[in-house]
Amino acid sequence: MPVITFSPMENELRKDYFLDRRVIIAVGRGKRPSDFKRDPAPEEDGKTCFFCPGNEEMTPAEISRVEEDGHWVIRVFPNKYPAVTTEEEEGSDELMPAYGYHEIVVENPAHSKSVSDLSIERISHVLSVYNERVEHMLSDPRVRYALVFKNHGRKAGASLSHTHTQIISTPVVPRLVKEEAEAVERYKTLNGSCPLCDAWKKEVGGPRKVWEDYHMAVFTPYASRSPMEAWIVPKRHVHDLGDLSDEERHSMASAFKLLLEKLRDGLNDPPYNLYFHVNPRGADLHLHVELLPRLSNWAGFELGSEIIINTMAPEDAAEFYRPE
Amino acid sequence: MPVITFSPMENELRKDYFLDRRVIIAVGRGKRPSDFKRDPAPEEDGKTCFFCPGNEEMTPAEISRVEEDGHWVIRVFPNKYPAVTTEEEEGSDELMPAYGYHEIVVENPAHSKSVSDLSIERISHVLSVYNERVEHMLSDPRVRYALVFKNHGRKAGASLSHTHTQIISTPVVPRLVKEEAEAVERYKTLNGSCPLCDAWKKEVGGPRKVWEDYHMAVFTPYASRSPMEAWIVPKRHVHDLGDLSDEERHSMASAFKLLLEKLRDGLNDPPYNLYFHVNPRGADLHLHVELLPRLSNWAGFELGSEIIINTMAPEDAAEFYRPE
Repeated sequence: MPVITFSPMENELRKDYFLDRRVIIAVGRGKRPSDFKRDPAPEEDGKTCFFCPGNEEMTPAEISRVEEDGHWVIRVFPNKYPAVTTEEEEGSDELMPAYGYHEIVVENPAHSKSVSDLSIERISHVLSVYNERVEHMLSDPRVRYALVFKNHGRKAGASLSHTHTQIISTPVVPRLVKEEAEAVERYKTLNGSCPLCDAWKKEVGGPRKVWEDYHMAVFTPYASRSPMEAWIVPKRHVHDLGDLSDEERHSMASAFKLLLEKLRDGLNDPPYNLYFHVNPRGADLHLHVELLPRLSNWAGFELGSEIIINTMAPEDAAEFYRPE
Repeated sequence: MPVITFSPMENELRKDYFLDRRVIIAVGRGKRPSDFKRDPAPEEDGKTCFFCPGNEEMTPAEISRVEEDGHWVIRVFPNKYPAVTTEEEEGSDELMPAYGYHEIVVENPAHSKSVSDLSIERISHVLSVYNERVEHMLSDPRVRYALVFKNHGRKAGASLSHTHTQIISTPVVPRLVKEEAEAVERYKTLNGSCPLCDAWKKEVGGPRKVWEDYHMAVFTPYASRSPMEAWIVPKRHVHDLGDLSDEERHSMASAFKLLLEKLRDGLNDPPYNLYFHVNPRGADLHLHVELLPRLSNWAGFELGSEIIINTMAPEDAAEFYRPE
């Protein structure tokens, strides 16, 4: 079979579904998914892992845990080196304390197991735990947003290899989330509909579709910022993880497992970041998850322009991710 | 002498001078400039360098050169793997050809010499060459912007080690530049002045001042996005490199040399990106240069929020850069 890419022009400038954010799909420098296959990760050194069972006293005081057969399987505690602070000093818009909470969710006790190795049921449970913590943080009126994100692999910023997710709350709505919420309003005024509802409906019928079931749509976004970027979007117009039914959460967990297994098996487990965009208070942002494998290096052009050069067409990435 | 940092709070949330862009200065995880000292760069392997004298036929056809004693000292040619294209297809806002020019400026024939090793006169000449190319690109009505940027070191995206600068023109005003130009207008309406004029005037009298002369101000920005970020701002409210007098250009070259020598000698030549923000047509953006050493790794939080966590206070960075 010939390789079909859906990029008729050599260097396309594509605009995001609703943000004023652009990428250059530079397939002339073109990469295929297999070009990103990495060497297997080196063996771990024998350092003590703070996140392993038996070392619980090495983390700050536990916030919550989920147990099975008398042992924890999911564990939540504050980050030992928080990026935010709960001191309540006064501030101005130019300078305020970075007020908030910074927590760690360890999704599984086994040191070398990644989220891709967990059962769909466990991943679904993990999603509930994320939501509990987000809701708890947002119950503090000084908190304006809570970002759930995962850094997987050293190149993606993970300083400890035992898989974990972080949640940081902020006293302002973050720039990107604010921009999304504002762009949603503009889009609604113009089109009378939600841009993410429109996006998934369009994408599940096209070359960037990865997977769908009754509840969830998975696709590689039209203006992907990195090779192998993928989004998980609930089909129902929901705002938060807490709005998901058990079935929808199970379906989102299946989507996670599909994407992360493909990366693990097809590309030897490359570094990635992923994050949840939940709705900021008072806005109408459609909940979604963005997965960004760290397979390229943003340099002076990206930093200075905030236009991203991506050397792989998302249509090729979708082909890679699609279940057989 | 005790180490004085000017960060009274442990985790500060700081807002940029005029953009709605925030950073967390997390000095609790705190780093001192010397923490970023790297091991000396490994020796070069013996591969043929396309940018060295004698290999001129390995680059695309030369656009221009500056000669001294019958040999080129500065050379300009198109990028062999352009991120943009000069094919003139039709497009829409969602999808258009990434129309434009992608050029390379090699600032010096010696393979291992960096910009920090050049004379102020040469750097000043190089700045004129950048400006010539930008003006040439902007003479094409389909070009809306031209970004001059340098990637230094592999971690900063340089694929070839022979020092060079790139210029990419785009058919849209890039997101960050557009945001700056719009923020300038808002700031002017509110304050009746230019935010960068106000910023340099304030900063040369404070703890983030690096250097100034009659023409130029150098400081570490209040809401620095990376350890050791530094800005060069002409004191006169000019828009473009072409607006600089010979004296001003000489002064900007001195600022470059100061910053890059400090990085080379004090931190063993770390990777960095730098770029010029010239004024987009019809706007009123004050010309400035932003230097971003690549001493931290943006991960899930930064990508998902566009709030940057910076582990070093810019006040400490300024102390590092200041001439004795």
